Amino acid sequence: MLDLIPKYLSDLRSKKPLVHNITNLVVMNVTANALLAIGASPVMAHAEEELEDMLKLANALVVNIGTLNSHWIKSMEKAVKIASAMEKPIVLDPVGAGATRLRTQVALRLLEAGDITVLRGNLGEIAALLGEGGKTRGVDTADYKEDLAQMVAVEATKRFNLVVAVTGATDFISDGKELYAIKNGVSLLGRVTGTGCMATALIGAFCAVAEPLSAAVSALTVLGVAAEKAYEDAPYPGSFHVRLYDWLYRIDSDLLKEKMEVKALVF
Amino acid sequence: MLDLIPKYLSDLRSKKPLVHNITNLVVMNVTANALLAIGASPVMAHAEEELEDMLKLANALVVNIGTLNSHWIKSMEKAVKIASAMEKPIVLDPVGAGATRLRTQVALRLLEAGDITVLRGNLGEIAALLGEGGKTRGVDTADYKEDLAQMVAVEATKRFNLVVAVTGATDFISDGKELYAIKNGVSLLGRVTGTGCMATALIGAFCAVAEPLSAAVSALTVLGVAAEKAYEDAPYPGSFHVRLYDWLYRIDSDLLKEKMEVKALVF
Amino acid sequence: MLDLIPKYLSDLRSKKPLVHNITNLVVMNVTANALLAIGASPVMAHAEEELEDMLKLANALVVNIGTLNSHWIKSMEKAVKIASAMEKPIVLDPVGAGATRLRTQVALRLLEAGDITVLRGNLGEIAALLGEGGKTRGVDTADYKEDLAQMVAVEATKRFNLVVAVTGATDFISDGKELYAIKNGVSLLGRVTGTGCMATALIGAFCAVAEPLSAAVSALTVLGVAAEKAYEDAPYPGSFHVRLYDWLYRIDSDLLKEKMEVKALVF
Repeated sequence: MLDLIPKYLSDLRSKKPLVHNITNLVVMNVTANALLAIGASPVMAHAEEELEDMLKLANALVVNIGTLNSHWIKSMEKAVKIASAMEKPIVLDPVGAGATRLRTQVALRLLEAGDITVLRGNLGEIAALLGEGGKTRGVDTADYKEDLAQMVAVEATKRFNLVVAVTGATDFISDGKELYAIKNGVSLLGRVTGTGCMATALIGAFCAVAEPLSAAVSALTVLGVAAEKAYEDAPYPGSFHVRLYDWLYRIDSDLLKEKMEVKALVF
Repeated sequence: MLDLIPKYLSDLRSKKPLVHNITNLVVMNVTANALLAIGASPVMAHAEEELEDMLKLANALVVNIGTLNSHWIKSMEKAVKIASAMEKPIVLDPVGAGATRLRTQVALRLLEAGDITVLRGNLGEIAALLGEGGKTRGVDTADYKEDLAQMVAVEATKRFNLVVAVTGATDFISDGKELYAIKNGVSLLGRVTGTGCMATALIGAFCAVAEPLSAAVSALTVLGVAAEKAYEDAPYPGSFHVRLYDWLYRIDSDLLKEKMEVKALVF
Repeated sequence: MLDLIPKYLSDLRSKKPLVHNITNLVVMNVTANALLAIGASPVMAHAEEELEDMLKLANALVVNIGTLNSHWIKSMEKAVKIASAMEKPIVLDPVGAGATRLRTQVALRLLEAGDITVLRGNLGEIAALLGEGGKTRGVDTADYKEDLAQMVAVEATKRFNLVVAVTGATDFISDGKELYAIKNGVSLLGRVTGTGCMATALIGAFCAVAEPLSAAVSALTVLGVAAEKAYEDAPYPGSFHVRLYDWLYRIDSDLLKEKMEVKALVF
C-alpha cells in the first residue's frame, strides 16, 4: 500500500474532493486552508437545515469536537447519521476527550450515531475513549509512550470497528488487521494550534480517493513530510505554520518518495 | 471613474471607516486583518441587543452567510433592517448560495429585508439567486464562463436593483447602467480561504468613501493588484496569503496606476 | 519586580500552564497560537456542561467579550463564578466596552460575578467601565492620552479592586499601590487583529507563575519586545504578524534584558 501514497495524492488533486467540515471555532480557517493547499475543496456548514443538501455534494464528512455546545452537538449527531445513511466516509476528531466528561461522552455518542470510518486523536484522547481516561491535559497531550500508543490504536480498532490513527512523535494507524508507523513530522507541529485538526481534515480528503486505512496513512505521511520541509525553511512557529501550507501545496511524488518514513509493523 | 480609484483609496485611509461585519466563522480573522491592512477599522458584532448601537457608529455593514444557523440568520436580518433604516451602505456575500437551499433562501430573504447596496459572489452563487441554481459546488465555484458572468451580473442588477460584482478570473461589476471588467488578480487567490470574503469586506470599506459602483470596482482592483504583488513575492498559498496583507497595506496610487487593468464595457 | 520578568518567562516555559479561554470568534486562533508560542498550553471551551471539569485542570481563565451573544454571556458568567470559587486567576478583556451598551454592561456584570484578577483594555474601554464612556470607536481606540491613561488605570484599580492594564503607545499597569509604564511595542500591532487579545491571554499565562501585577507587567513587556523584533524583521502587517509568533517563541532572558523599557512611576 505504501507505494500507492503518491498515486493517492495525485488522485486527490485530480478529483478535488469536497470535504464537509463540522469543526471547532479555533481551527476552521486552518483546516480550510490545509484542504485548499493540498488540492481539496473545503466547506463548513453546521445548520441542521442544510446538512442533507451539503452532504449530498460532499465526498467526505469531518467532525471535530474541539469547541462544543448543545447546538453543535445536535448538528454533529445529525450529520453523522445522514452521512452514514449516504455511505460517505466520516472522520472523527475527539479533541480533548478525557479532559472533560462532556467531550468523552460526545465522542462516544458520535461513534454510536453512525458508521465512523476513521478516528484520529492523540494518545490521551483515544485512551480516554477506551476508558483509560485521566491522562489528557487540555488538548496537547502528555508524554508519548510508543508502546502504549500502538496498543491503544489496535485496541480502539477492535472496540469501535474502524480505522484508528493515534498521532504523536510516531503516528500509529491500524484497521485491526494491519498496523503502520509513520516517523515523519517535527515536534514544532505541537506549537501551532490546529495541526492535529489539519491531519484529521486531510484524512477526510484522502478518504475520497482511497480506502480508509490507506487514506489515513497517506494523509499523515503527506502532512509529516510537508512539516519537515516547512521546518527546514523556518524553525519558528509563525513562519513554520505559513510554510506548512506552502509545502502541502508543493509536495509531489518525488518529495514523498524521498522523505516518507512509513513502515508496516507486525502485531 | 477609473481615474478616481487612487483617490478613493487615499480617502479610505484618511477616513478609517468603521466596517461592521456579520460574517462567517471561517474568515472572521481574515476579513478583520484585510480591513486593518487597507486602513479601515473592522468590528464584528452579531448579538441582536447591540446591533443598533454598533450600526450607529459604523460606516458600512457587511453580511456574509458562509456559516449560518438560525441565531445568525435572525441577527443578519435584523442588522440589514436597521442599517437600511439608517441608510448605511450594506454589502451582501451569499457564500454557497446554490449549494444548499438554505443558503439560497437566506440570501434572497436578506435581499428583501432591506436596501442592500452591493451584492458580491462568484458566478455560481449569483446565478443561483437568479434561479439558475445547481451550478455551485461548495464555495469555490465551477468553471468560469466570461460571457455568462457578464450576463448574470447585469441580470442580477435588474432583478435586485443594486450593484452586483461577479468575481472570478475576470471580475464583472455593474449597476445596470455601466459594466466594468477587472483583469487583476491571480488564480492562487482560490487556494486561500476567505479571499472572496475579503473582497466583500473591502467593498464595504470603500462604500464609506465612494458611491457603490465605484466602491466595488475600487475594492476589487486594489485586492487584485495587491494579490499580483503578493504572488510576485511568494507563489505558494501560505506565504502568498501573508504577503496579501502586506500589499493591502503597501499599495499606493503609483502602484495602482501602474498595474490596474480595468475597463468599462458596452452592453 | 522588573528583575524578575526573565525568571517568570522561564518559569512559564517550565510549567506550561493550561490557560482556559472563553474568547471571541475573531481571535481564537490568534490567542491559541500566541499561548503555544510563548510555551503555555491553550484550551478553548465554552459549553456550560464542561466548564467545571476544564477549570479544574486550568491554571488560569481568560474571558474576552469581543463577540457576544446570550449563550456566550451565560457561559462567561458561569466560568467566572466557578474559577472564582476555585481561586484560579481570571483575566478579563472588555473588548469594545463603550462602543455598545451591551458590552459595557456585560463587562461590568462579569466584574461583579467573581474575583477578576486582572482587567486589560485600551483607554476607551477601561474609561467606559468607569462611566467615562462615549470614547470608544469600534475596538481600536481613539487618540491616546498618556495622562488620562495613567489616571484611568489607577482609578479602575480602586473601583474594581484588581490589577488594571491600560494598553496603548505606552502601557500602564497598576494594582492601586504601584504603577508601571511600558514603552515597548510598535504601532503596527494596531494593524493586526487580536494583538490586544493576545496580550490578555499572555497575562493569563503569566498569572500561573507570578502574582497578578507582575504577571501583567511581564506579559506586556514580553509581547512588546517580541513585537519590536518582529517589526525589525518585517515592517508590514501580514509578515509582522507571523514573526510575532516566532519572537514569542524565540524571546529569552538576554533579549528581554537588552530591550525592555519598563519603569515604576510614582503617583
